[in-house]
Amino acid sequence: MDWETLAKELATPTDSKIVLLVIDGLGGLPRNGKTELETAQTTNLDRLALRGCCGVTDPVFMGITPGSGPAHLGLFGYDPVKYQLGRGILEALGSDVEVRQGDLVARGNFATLRDGLIVDRRAGRIPTSECERLVGLLNKALAGRPGAEVTLFAGKEHRFVARFRTEGLGDCLTDADPQKDHKPRVPAKAEAPGSEKAAGIINAFLDDVVAILKDEPTANAALLRGFSLQPSIPQMPELCSLKPAAIANYPMYKGLAKLIGMATYKVGAETKDLFDTLEAHWAEHDFFYVHFKKTDAAGEDGNFEAKVKAIEEIDSFVPRIEALKPDVLVVTADHSTPALMHGHSFHPNPFLLVAETALPDNTGVFTERECVQGSLGRFRSIFAMPLMLGHAGKLKKFGA
Amino acid sequence: MDWETLAKELATPTDSKIVLLVIDGLGGLPRNGKTELETAQTTNLDRLALRGCCGVTDPVFMGITPGSGPAHLGLFGYDPVKYQLGRGILEALGSDVEVRQGDLVARGNFATLRDGLIVDRRAGRIPTSECERLVGLLNKALAGRPGAEVTLFAGKEHRFVARFRTEGLGDCLTDADPQKDHKPRVPAKAEAPGSEKAAGIINAFLDDVVAILKDEPTANAALLRGFSLQPSIPQMPELCSLKPAAIANYPMYKGLAKLIGMATYKVGAETKDLFDTLEAHWAEHDFFYVHFKKTDAAGEDGNFEAKVKAIEEIDSFVPRIEALKPDVLVVTADHSTPALMHGHSFHPNPFLLVAETALPDNTGVFTERECVQGSLGRFRSIFAMPLMLGHAGKLKKFGA
Repeated sequence: MDWETLAKELATPTDSKIVLLVIDGLGGLPRNGKTELETAQTTNLDRLALRGCCGVTDPVFMGITPGSGPAHLGLFGYDPVKYQLGRGILEALGSDVEVRQGDLVARGNFATLRDGLIVDRRAGRIPTSECERLVGLLNKALAGRPGAEVTLFAGKEHRFVARFRTEGLGDCLTDADPQKDHKPRVPAKAEAPGSEKAAGIINAFLDDVVAILKDEPTANAALLRGFSLQPSIPQMPELCSLKPAAIANYPMYKGLAKLIGMATYKVGAETKDLFDTLEAHWAEHDFFYVHFKKTDAAGEDGNFEAKVKAIEEIDSFVPRIEALKPDVLVVTADHSTPALMHGHSFHPNPFLLVAETALPDNTGVFTERECVQGSLGRFRSIFAMPLMLGHAGKLKKFGA
Repeated sequence: MDWETLAKELATPTDSKIVLLVIDGLGGLPRNGKTELETAQTTNLDRLALRGCCGVTDPVFMGITPGSGPAHLGLFGYDPVKYQLGRGILEALGSDVEVRQGDLVARGNFATLRDGLIVDRRAGRIPTSECERLVGLLNKALAGRPGAEVTLFAGKEHRFVARFRTEGLGDCLTDADPQKDHKPRVPAKAEAPGSEKAAGIINAFLDDVVAILKDEPTANAALLRGFSLQPSIPQMPELCSLKPAAIANYPMYKGLAKLIGMATYKVGAETKDLFDTLEAHWAEHDFFYVHFKKTDAAGEDGNFEAKVKAIEEIDSFVPRIEALKPDVLVVTADHSTPALMHGHSFHPNPFLLVAETALPDNTGVFTERECVQGSLGRFRSIFAMPLMLGHAGKLKKFGA
């Protein structure tokens, strides 16, 4: 896959505009013979399918079920096997924590330490308000501390994100977590040269936490795991000569978009807010990634009907995209989430591309099985980006 | 292709069971408009095609005709270009010769030596019984000889397999074979450092053969070619977290399966013996490779009718697999063997997968041309393994 090399050589700025609508977890499996998408009434998507060309995409390759991180990276043209995002960075992105180049982040738990043993790795699942109080207390006590700037961000119940900010941190580190209850605390250990400094800072921080929280009844220690630096990923504006924007209201997707250089906006929680934001910033960008979450959430819940409804809801907003007259409109998913499987799956994603330069393939209904018959065939998600840019006239000829 | 890396990371043992039925050389070409598979009455396979999803696979890539070794390696998830099996090792496997790590094997011929020239490289194609007598005589004479343990295994007519067993043997060696009649004997030569010891042992052995057989009228010398060590291939049980078994009655396929760590069983020569063995060992394994040879043999013979009959025969045994209720059943081939071509070909293989998690694609007839329209599309055989493991729930999610 030489897309990155070719992108740098061929991508060129133009006035044309691309909209990539990601209906998260769209693909499904049949109940009574019909998938969620086949069951849903999708008048607008069906009309687009007739005008455009269809296919199906594999986020990684056949059989591999991707997390949201790798699935989105693929869609944006980044090889998800080459760019693996650590758990810590994804948790930080998902918690709307600002992460800069060089920052080291980790997932944290408050825990109960008694007689030198971690007796409860989740500190009795303290309420979120307790977690927020402890995080506030620690951030205050740790402020101005030498070595590194350490900031905690409260999550749900006993969870938090820790961010270490200073020069020269590495992330080849073992978890500072005994993994099981009734074991002593374990320090983070550097697994490669270049991570020793980070290990020292982390372990001093963990000792400080125990000292500061010594009078707390249950949450009197912290565990950290999934240490990760912000990964070094080529930035989409330079790689693809684009001014890209992410229109998403879930922190994880905004964070991931930020990571690759997309502009992000504050978007309300309602579906209509996505399209208000899209319209408001239409003049400023030439690539818009619009993320719709409800389909995936319903699939994860195993709620077939809710997923059908979510599909019908997003379908009803499609005319608002059409009214903007994008040069290229792609409707697809990051991965499949069949309600019958209660989770992500390895099934390919329906893919629909509408553009003046698309050869219509007479797909009259936008479904998994109709897309299989489409003229784009079955391809890896990583090719979606060159395909969109090509149809938008944003790629120069390769060679003479 | 990062399947090996991902396999190690994602594969996880479960109770689910996979059956991979390989109908050797299944794909064909039409006579009077219909291929062998299109001509055959395959009620059972057609019924499965309706329930499952179909596609076609390329063993290596388009246009490449594979031998049985590479074709099977691909199906098992090993890149056939990365893992090339020497002729000697395939011959040894095909002759049911036990090969251990470090053993050096080669294909051998008895030949006629006269006045310092090899006048007949096949020793007048001596009868197999003669070959067996000579092999017995040599094994006896060579026993306990210093340097290496050398054992010969009689093949058909003038052919045999030689196995050299000692430490430090290399296989970068030229053939000890003049390739043409009326040339002098040629010694094996080391082509890279590390193979000199092997060359010395081989050439001393070849001299010994001439000394021992000096009174034989025709078969009084030996030629060796295709020197190969057992290749180092990741073992399927570790790579894929499987307990795999090969149900095959031809030595070559059993040998290949052993090479990648599959359990093998003694299986009778009849087709029903395959299924008796499958049933007998059903509880012990979670991956079963069942190999049916007759289709390929008929194709090689150019016998269209025999191939049609063989397809109908294997179809009639399909219900015995279904009765075992595998979680994933795949029916496909290693490569195509069109009767019209009298040999292996580069045509893609029909591929059918049945599982609860398969999105049925309404393929009502299992044929080459129907499979092309199937929802799996056209893919390299190497993806069959992740696809089967994914459908069997044996792969963890990739990334978060």
